Amino acid sequence: MIRIGILGYGNLGRGVESAVNTNPDMELVAVFSRRNPENVTVKTPGVKVYGIDALKDMKDEIDVLVLCGGSATDLPVQTPAYASLYNVVDSFDTHARVPEHFANVDKASREGGKVSIISCGWDPGMFSLNRLYANCILPNGQDYTFWGKGVSQGHSDAVRRIEGVIDCRQYTVPVPEALDSVRSGACPELSTREKHTRECFVVAEEGADLARIEQEIKTMPNYFSDYNTTVTFITAEEMKANHSGLPHGGCVIRTGKTGFEGENTHVIEYKLTLDSNPEFTGSVIAAYARAAYRMNNEGMSGCKTVFDIAPAYLSDKSGEELRAHLL
Amino acid sequence: MIRIGILGYGNLGRGVESAVNTNPDMELVAVFSRRNPENVTVKTPGVKVYGIDALKDMKDEIDVLVLCGGSATDLPVQTPAYASLYNVVDSFDTHARVPEHFANVDKASREGGKVSIISCGWDPGMFSLNRLYANCILPNGQDYTFWGKGVSQGHSDAVRRIEGVIDCRQYTVPVPEALDSVRSGACPELSTREKHTRECFVVAEEGADLARIEQEIKTMPNYFSDYNTTVTFITAEEMKANHSGLPHGGCVIRTGKTGFEGENTHVIEYKLTLDSNPEFTGSVIAAYARAAYRMNNEGMSGCKTVFDIAPAYLSDKSGEELRAHLL
Repeated sequence: MIRIGILGYGNLGRGVESAVNTNPDMELVAVFSRRNPENVTVKTPGVKVYGIDALKDMKDEIDVLVLCGGSATDLPVQTPAYASLYNVVDSFDTHARVPEHFANVDKASREGGKVSIISCGWDPGMFSLNRLYANCILPNGQDYTFWGKGVSQGHSDAVRRIEGVIDCRQYTVPVPEALDSVRSGACPELSTREKHTRECFVVAEEGADLARIEQEIKTMPNYFSDYNTTVTFITAEEMKANHSGLPHGGCVIRTGKTGFEGENTHVIEYKLTLDSNPEFTGSVIAAYARAAYRMNNEGMSGCKTVFDIAPAYLSDKSGEELRAHLL
Repeated sequence: MIRIGILGYGNLGRGVESAVNTNPDMELVAVFSRRNPENVTVKTPGVKVYGIDALKDMKDEIDVLVLCGGSATDLPVQTPAYASLYNVVDSFDTHARVPEHFANVDKASREGGKVSIISCGWDPGMFSLNRLYANCILPNGQDYTFWGKGVSQGHSDAVRRIEGVIDCRQYTVPVPEALDSVRSGACPELSTREKHTRECFVVAEEGADLARIEQEIKTMPNYFSDYNTTVTFITAEEMKANHSGLPHGGCVIRTGKTGFEGENTHVIEYKLTLDSNPEFTGSVIAAYARAAYRMNNEGMSGCKTVFDIAPAYLSDKSGEELRAHLL
């Protein structure tokens, strides 16, 4: 059994827990939280909750520690801090800071003789992998990534900060005509506005100035001003009934040419349709936690991304079984 | 420059040649053929054609030898024969004989200290990879593979053997309703007939009994009798004008459940739409030829499949570049 620890028990932590629960070769042994452990109730029976300080003493009880904090302030500190003690997996997604994060984590992992995997999930993660494979197969081509239909937490939070807004759910939606054009192999140049629309469902305070709220949303720089945005005001009851899930997904498409005259066009598409963003992300992380464990057992150490990991390491099956059933 | 040799200059050999031509770090140095070399004209200027015997003496001039023969009789002999002299890549696709082929090739590669990659292309190959990744992410799920719309050479050949048939192009076509049902996450049980239809375009001899030909096609065991098949008689001119390409493609879909009650459904789809089956297969093989070369340079040896190869080996870019641009 691969013994898993989870640091941070929010949406992603619970998604990892759910994934560990469906993998018969894994068990969740502990959850670590900054909250008072007495106030954290873990779904899996028998799993203990500890404060973060306990991590310095549990090396021998945990094979892989999954870091479920945020990329802005948690992971840049936590992943390097624990990478020398544990095999670790995180979902760091601040693209511009990946080189620095990789270097910090790599150093700690090598010092401790452990394997770390950063930026794991679906984007970055499975989408990155599919960009890499498709680029290597079709060097003469063009990449496209579409997100959604799905809930963007960052955009929902931005709307919630507007005066008079009680709650918001923001869906990112690919523009169907843009998708059709890309899939046809036409290789269009697409502006931000042409690729995605943004749909906001907003619960406002009683008596709030709805026109002002709508205007503030639609003109918000970075978040909405470059997009065609719709704003729909709903009741708190409607929010709960129709928008309580965290669906997401999207697709990575590469179109490319082959032939001595570039006469043949090919389209490679990888598409995800997810009922629960955190549970799917947790499922990807669980598979890579297995890889971290197996690679470290073979004597490897250092920081890896999905690019550096042979796919067979993700599986609990032998090479013979994989060749017999999946090749 | 990675120096490539090609053994067998048919459709696949020319597809590999086209791919080598688009990869700036590769050059085609020689083609080997069972035909009289004087009768083989290679598209790339300056490339020499040799008989097969020359392969025993060209170890120092070729980094990776790509074997482009058939799986029935060529590859079971050729891949083990050359795997001790060269890093090799083949597209062996006789599923039942993979264990035996893997063992033979692995032994030869280890003896020679070379890397061999078998069963490389899109199915087996990229489809296998996507089955593996999706199975590891969603252990609680169901796999589906659809092929087409595309030309099946085996089925086209089978029709050509019927008396009175001059030429045939057989297209394998996924049933749209089956695809829709799978993509919805409904997890249907599908019979062979429910998944694909077969469309035959046939040029018959003048005066041939068309009804008899159609009947022979539709009732042919293994090839057509389990499918809904349409037969359309066309002229040789129509065949040339409308059916001279070798398009193919298809998709691998896995649907799976997550959550403690299995309450969330996820759909992972990998889809290929290919103008030229041999050129795309050749493009996959070229990327894996790079991997074979790089892995061997790092001291590795033995037989691998796509499951055993970290994705970064397929690229000519450094880890830093990949993390910066594709993660």
